[in-house]
Amino acid sequence: MNHLFLPVDAPVDAALRGFALAHPGLVSLHEDPLYVTARDRHPGRRVGLLSGGGSGHEPLHAGFVGRGMLDAAVPGRVFASPHNRQVYEASRAVAGGDGVLHVVKNYTGDRINFGIAAERLRADGIPVRRVLVDDDLATDDAETATGRRGTGATVVVEKLLGGAADAGLGLDELAEAGAAFAAASRSIAVAARAQTAPGRGGEAFALADGEIEYGVGIHGERAARTVPRPDFADLVDRMTQQVLDGLPDPEDAVLLLVNGLGATTLLELYAIHDRVRHQLDKRGVRVAGQLVGTFVPALDMSGFSVTVTALRENWLDWWHAPALTPAFPLSETAR
Amino acid sequence: MNHLFLPVDAPVDAALRGFALAHPGLVSLHEDPLYVTARDRHPGRRVGLLSGGGSGHEPLHAGFVGRGMLDAAVPGRVFASPHNRQVYEASRAVAGGDGVLHVVKNYTGDRINFGIAAERLRADGIPVRRVLVDDDLATDDAETATGRRGTGATVVVEKLLGGAADAGLGLDELAEAGAAFAAASRSIAVAARAQTAPGRGGEAFALADGEIEYGVGIHGERAARTVPRPDFADLVDRMTQQVLDGLPDPEDAVLLLVNGLGATTLLELYAIHDRVRHQLDKRGVRVAGQLVGTFVPALDMSGFSVTVTALRENWLDWWHAPALTPAFPLSETAR
Repeated sequence: MNHLFLPVDAPVDAALRGFALAHPGLVSLHEDPLYVTARDRHPGRRVGLLSGGGSGHEPLHAGFVGRGMLDAAVPGRVFASPHNRQVYEASRAVAGGDGVLHVVKNYTGDRINFGIAAERLRADGIPVRRVLVDDDLATDDAETATGRRGTGATVVVEKLLGGAADAGLGLDELAEAGAAFAAASRSIAVAARAQTAPGRGGEAFALADGEIEYGVGIHGERAARTVPRPDFADLVDRMTQQVLDGLPDPEDAVLLLVNGLGATTLLELYAIHDRVRHQLDKRGVRVAGQLVGTFVPALDMSGFSVTVTALRENWLDWWHAPALTPAFPLSETAR
Repeated sequence: MNHLFLPVDAPVDAALRGFALAHPGLVSLHEDPLYVTARDRHPGRRVGLLSGGGSGHEPLHAGFVGRGMLDAAVPGRVFASPHNRQVYEASRAVAGGDGVLHVVKNYTGDRINFGIAAERLRADGIPVRRVLVDDDLATDDAETATGRRGTGATVVVEKLLGGAADAGLGLDELAEAGAAFAAASRSIAVAARAQTAPGRGGEAFALADGEIEYGVGIHGERAARTVPRPDFADLVDRMTQQVLDGLPDPEDAVLLLVNGLGATTLLELYAIHDRVRHQLDKRGVRVAGQLVGTFVPALDMSGFSVTVTALRENWLDWWHAPALTPAFPLSETAR
């Protein structure tokens, strides 16, 4: 059956209206084409920051619109890329004196649609650069030309870019910094139950009892492997080690994201966080900042992901820089 | 199968450790007996505010520990009341000059265990009062002596009490205010899929295709009625009207909570919020504050609840008063 509570017609439009009504002090809604913008912007920011992608990953991206993070978010339909007209119009609305930076998760549809919008913006004389997020280790050795998928690291990249933009970086510096944030981030995800298939209902893919998808994507892309479920500690340890080993340039200090994929509870995510920290301690890795919660889900999938970003100089200041958005947690900025 | 990712041994202890590691600037962990306390307290607060109850409802209660809300939270095992020793020790740790106030959801186990702790505290000379939260309309006309269950309104009561406590109210004033907050609040909840049964796994109760539980509880208590699923707008309208009609003393202005029961996504909750607001507008009810998110879930149940609190004088100041906790949203206090 279909467990989702959504209107049949234009569910994303309804959700974005309800989102704007919930956060009237922080965001403004634009209905045609559909996007949201921040009500407030740091006076030092020279570049507009915009992200977007398919819906069904909330709070991404709209929940990170606001002072200190994104200036605009552009939602597509569920698991579908936004139209280039949405990206184009939203970009025009938030471009700064030094242009606009697009934060794009690495999926073909998003690359194409953001790319078309970027060409149109350049034709208007608005400078545009792109940061591509591609953190998912499950697709690291895929035999395709598309590269790694963009998943949980997106929220980390958006927060760091927000801090860097407020520090006054220009478009090219910001694009280079964003590429470095993405390059320093790796993730791995598992699922014990697929998300509900939007529309038709039912589970989007079937898992046998006692099996998990190891390396699942955030749209129900099947995993690299369906494997017998390890016990709790073994599973978390294996994921943590894989992410650490997958970092191109490991550092002593990292940012950590323990992310729920939708139906996985905070009780579980905090218990997972406890185990990840135990492993990081054993490896001598210091956690300088952490997020634990549902930040980049795949609708109502039962599962979670672990993301690690190896920190470099200055980055921690940008991580802890003030942010006032619907979904970025207070506890990471109020210190 | 069991979709939960939890250690077999002491999952709540592990989760609370992971919680404290995630929010080191805001909370302190006490391991034996198990509870968390706030690192900071408004200098004007004379009464310690404490809540607790069974686990599986996170972020409730620990996520609302911090400046401006609770001084301590005491978790039981999943869906089980905490031991009176936990409540007693945590209360001693956070009692103010004018004692301690317990916020208790109306369940027999919680009433008994908080009651025993209160007797022990009084024997120590520490003044104690209790605020009982009993907002669930599904149990309004139950033929039992236990009264309405406590559900979503708990987070609203905890926020208002936090603001009132920081304004310097004494224990008796605060207990009366809390009773008024609870008395002015009503909720109704529905589910399309039960939560995973902890331990044995599988769905805690079965629903046929196309049916929902109307009036479900937050521990998988079966609903008042299993009904054919109405379409989206009809369902949300019916719930909204029932809650408005159930308010003992309706006001022009209200606080609104659209709460996820675990697996229900933000995409759905914001679409539901949009529809609830449409109904409230039609009825001429002004929303002066709102929360949309997963605040009082029932593990990973697919479902949601609607809570309305009829506002009285002063209450809005307490709602918007500064709060710095792991889970209370910025957007309701930063204006």
